[in-house]
Amino acid sequence: MYDVHKVRGDFPILSREVNNKPLVYLDNGASAQKPQVVIDAITQAYSMEYSNVHRGLHYLSNLATDKYEAVRGTIAKFLGAADEDEIVFTSGTTEAINMVAYSWAMPRLEAGDEIILSVMEHHANIVPWHFLRERQGVVLKWVDVDANGDLDPQSVLDAITPKTKLIAVTHMSNVLGTVVDVKSIVTGAKAQGVPVLVDGSQATVHAPVNVDDIGADFYAITGHKLYGPSGSGAMHIRKDRMAEMRPFLGGGDMIKEVSRDEVIYNDPPMKFEAGTPAIVQQIGLGVALEYMMGLGMENIAAHERALTDYARTKLTGLNWLNIQGLSQTKGGIFSFTLQGPAHPHDISTVLDKKGIAVRAGHHCAGPLMDHLGVTATCRASFGLYNTTDEVDKLVDALELCHELFA
Amino acid sequence: MYDVHKVRGDFPILSREVNNKPLVYLDNGASAQKPQVVIDAITQAYSMEYSNVHRGLHYLSNLATDKYEAVRGTIAKFLGAADEDEIVFTSGTTEAINMVAYSWAMPRLEAGDEIILSVMEHHANIVPWHFLRERQGVVLKWVDVDANGDLDPQSVLDAITPKTKLIAVTHMSNVLGTVVDVKSIVTGAKAQGVPVLVDGSQATVHAPVNVDDIGADFYAITGHKLYGPSGSGAMHIRKDRMAEMRPFLGGGDMIKEVSRDEVIYNDPPMKFEAGTPAIVQQIGLGVALEYMMGLGMENIAAHERALTDYARTKLTGLNWLNIQGLSQTKGGIFSFTLQGPAHPHDISTVLDKKGIAVRAGHHCAGPLMDHLGVTATCRASFGLYNTTDEVDKLVDALELCHELFA
Repeated sequence: MYDVHKVRGDFPILSREVNNKPLVYLDNGASAQKPQVVIDAITQAYSMEYSNVHRGLHYLSNLATDKYEAVRGTIAKFLGAADEDEIVFTSGTTEAINMVAYSWAMPRLEAGDEIILSVMEHHANIVPWHFLRERQGVVLKWVDVDANGDLDPQSVLDAITPKTKLIAVTHMSNVLGTVVDVKSIVTGAKAQGVPVLVDGSQATVHAPVNVDDIGADFYAITGHKLYGPSGSGAMHIRKDRMAEMRPFLGGGDMIKEVSRDEVIYNDPPMKFEAGTPAIVQQIGLGVALEYMMGLGMENIAAHERALTDYARTKLTGLNWLNIQGLSQTKGGIFSFTLQGPAHPHDISTVLDKKGIAVRAGHHCAGPLMDHLGVTATCRASFGLYNTTDEVDKLVDALELCHELFA
Repeated sequence: MYDVHKVRGDFPILSREVNNKPLVYLDNGASAQKPQVVIDAITQAYSMEYSNVHRGLHYLSNLATDKYEAVRGTIAKFLGAADEDEIVFTSGTTEAINMVAYSWAMPRLEAGDEIILSVMEHHANIVPWHFLRERQGVVLKWVDVDANGDLDPQSVLDAITPKTKLIAVTHMSNVLGTVVDVKSIVTGAKAQGVPVLVDGSQATVHAPVNVDDIGADFYAITGHKLYGPSGSGAMHIRKDRMAEMRPFLGGGDMIKEVSRDEVIYNDPPMKFEAGTPAIVQQIGLGVALEYMMGLGMENIAAHERALTDYARTKLTGLNWLNIQGLSQTKGGIFSFTLQGPAHPHDISTVLDKKGIAVRAGHHCAGPLMDHLGVTATCRASFGLYNTTDEVDKLVDALELCHELFA
């Protein structure tokens, strides 16, 4: 039985107050809070077990290396990847997708080649491709979502032409909460020889994911949304794609030999991991993923499903609230505006006075904002520690906003 | 008065044992240990003050943003930079130098253009330039060090030709300890219109540095060597060079607007900081730099100078020890081999049994190893918490190695 109150006790920040009210943290889509086990692991690593990794032979270096490298296996287990050598450590999804853009796409895409994107991508999965448009004439093809915020996999596949070199698509919208049927996209794309990159930043937080089952070529995750440290993350890359990638960042660790005249690169995945890595951050990410797996990803998903259903019923009952995206697949992310003059920034300020943290703005999703015809929304996004009581507090505060700004 | 024993009390790991001996940590060139104030700042950030930065309007987001952005000023102060908008946050020197390679050099250097490097550069300041050689025919020109390990600034300037587009040079060798007169190189290069990148990874750890006085175009530092968290760092970039740089990583925060058809980039320095940053790591770096400045960089330098002189006298007294590099500018980094059959890896293993952590290998400096005619060395590298007693322990253990392997 998933005991959310016990879970909340694992997160020290959840016991604090904001503006003299108990913190109601509903900004998980931006970044999640950290359980004590993660904080303790960081403290232990720096207090008693710290060294640089890989290049030392002394006790602390071996200890730090063992702990750091073990995280590769933890991430593989978390993602359902059979081969941990297909896991590349990154500082997060932004670095991961840029790596694909620079290392795989840049040397092989030519002017006129096409990349297919959904209109609900995060800027991390847009701007790297805009670079290729600006710098080498690659064409970005956008696939719309329907009125519910659903992305029809067939509409993505229908956009494929002989010029299509990549499909880059989110697994879960950070604005609408829509969960995309990426497996169908991958299966259809594979049949036509088109590689697929999946941005798993949001999806992996809320439900079990199996990258071997999905079959994408590139699948990126970001540690700070997964209850892990800022600056941690990873990407699952299929071996055949890794073999096609040139190195991204150059420096220590990613080489076997360097002379004045040449470089012999290391084998993947280390070929793509240059310099002193985010040692303690990745150790912390490993602990965060073990924590989630300890709770059980199915249990987390069930808890959040119930919470989402509760929130959906409550929020859709407010007939002055415009909710963006009501897909049947929708997870616990609600973006909304109030009818009338209240700006999302005003709403978030009022909620903040009640101790409720939500985000207001474009949510790093410019094309989706254009598609929805809004410049900004408020977003309440739930995590594994949120409760129906917190949904009630959100609703009460929104009703206050409605009164204030009506 | 600098009280090294009091300073040692600030670093919890220094009270631990390794192989039943008190830890003697002489691997500071690879990465430094962390004072309790840094560990506490990380704990506080995650336990009570965590949120994503920049894009929120709620209390925790504003708090985290204020703490995170304040570090820019701290780094500017530490580096003697008048303008904190010339500080770009990075994950370390490796990312910083790759940023310059991709964002500044790649779009402007053509086949046959030359980059001047010293032979004692770290791979982080070599491999990004090899990329340009491999990918677009840039020529790497190497300047040797003399028998003492000194780099004559004039020899660097003499290597300039009309094809020279950049000089990339370390401020302090991570193998030899040589401190380079980078100001003379910058002054001479500037007179000929050649930009200079300085790798400050080692130099900033041991003595006061003033980047405005030095005048380099790019000056990179790395947090984990500066007693700060892994995954933290920064680069000082002059505004006129920033204006010449295209964006490096694409994603959130580095944009003003994104639509299907175009991107409007943010102003520098944020133009070069994409996605959720290393929030807590940079906060920790700020605390580490404040800690160093609190001790006083002149005091740290004086302590290390005395320690280095002591170690130099002791180690040069061992006539079976080959020390690499004996520049008069040498800081507390000693690379050495033993005459006879003992491999550096064997030596480091014996030292480890005595609780002494040194590094053995190529130290990410392949061209220098070739120049020195060795494949590996042992390296003992000192930090602000090391003592003459630890030098004695190192010497005793080396004498044991000498007996064992003679």
